Amino acid sequence: MNHLVIFCHPSAASFNRAIADSVQAVSEALGHDTSCRDLYGIAFNPVLCKRDMDDPAGTVPQDVRQEQEFITWADTLTFVYPVWWAGMPAMLKGYVDRVFCQDFAYSLHGDSVKGLLGGKKVLIFNTTGLPSPFYTSQGMHEAMSLTTNTGIFELCGMEVLHHAFFGSLCAVSDDVRKSYLSEVVSITSRYL
Amino acid sequence: MNHLVIFCHPSAASFNRAIADSVQAVSEALGHDTSCRDLYGIAFNPVLCKRDMDDPAGTVPQDVRQEQEFITWADTLTFVYPVWWAGMPAMLKGYVDRVFCQDFAYSLHGDSVKGLLGGKKVLIFNTTGLPSPFYTSQGMHEAMSLTTNTGIFELCGMEVLHHAFFGSLCAVSDDVRKSYLSEVVSITSRYL
Repeated sequence: MNHLVIFCHPSAASFNRAIADSVQAVSEALGHDTSCRDLYGIAFNPVLCKRDMDDPAGTVPQDVRQEQEFITWADTLTFVYPVWWAGMPAMLKGYVDRVFCQDFAYSLHGDSVKGLLGGKKVLIFNTTGLPSPFYTSQGMHEAMSLTTNTGIFELCGMEVLHHAFFGSLCAVSDDVRKSYLSEVVSITSRYL
Repeated sequence: MNHLVIFCHPSAASFNRAIADSVQAVSEALGHDTSCRDLYGIAFNPVLCKRDMDDPAGTVPQDVRQEQEFITWADTLTFVYPVWWAGMPAMLKGYVDRVFCQDFAYSLHGDSVKGLLGGKKVLIFNTTGLPSPFYTSQGMHEAMSLTTNTGIFELCGMEVLHHAFFGSLCAVSDDVRKSYLSEVVSITSRYL
């Protein structure tokens, strides 16, 4: 199957990069056709502009069309990014704002919406700066899963297989980071 | 008191612009010093880059420092933006990513965080494309309030006074839009 990794972190030396590399390595070892979109690497423009809104079903900008072709190609999409302020970095949020546009990712029928990306599967790997119990105690993991999994991917008809959070990234030891990467390998192997 | 309106929508003819104008008019009529930051109007750069991360307490870029001065000045901040994909437009998310930086909006102490913007109040006005019952039935309003109010503003020590959602924006009549604006005026008058 075709597997698209969508990676969003400003630093090539980040732990998120190590997660994306692990996912890619497992994916290739399993024999899947694997591609990675590094949104900072390609300097994606995340700002949806007025022209995009006025003409949602009209001329799709070339950079958006290119990303849509990757998504069309993919059977499974794996998103790797840090949680900033209980959500995606603006770079990735703007990728969703612009690429998942009307009549590509969904269609509107009066007051209701129909997903157009049915059959595709999604995996999500997130890091958080603060410890996981800080988020769990507030119901924040569930809220982030609802806004992201349901509010974005399921709305487009996709199925979210797993959404993993790795906490305390600023404070944990190298050993804990290694155990996080083992978990990434285990999750990826299980779902791909 | 000093009141900062932070407006984020790509179109100057949008209903969100009408909401921001109503908020400003009420605020000025009440005698508050009122300023508005139109993030698309100033072409704010929402992409947090590697340099920002490597040097969080170091040299703050001029565009970020300018926005921080507005926030420091403000007693109350009102955010006006459309919900896109159960969250902020990337433009506003990136404003938060970059402007609410460490040692301005919060400080880290090992594994815990301390808000640095205590005493400031927040109002939020959102529009949604789909009907409110679509969101309510899934707990999505609560999830969006949790990720935004708690996950951003309360983490910085701010108090969210009210978070309003106006639904079905793509489908409602002019009369409904007028009633929405009346509600904006009523809420603004109540909390300012």
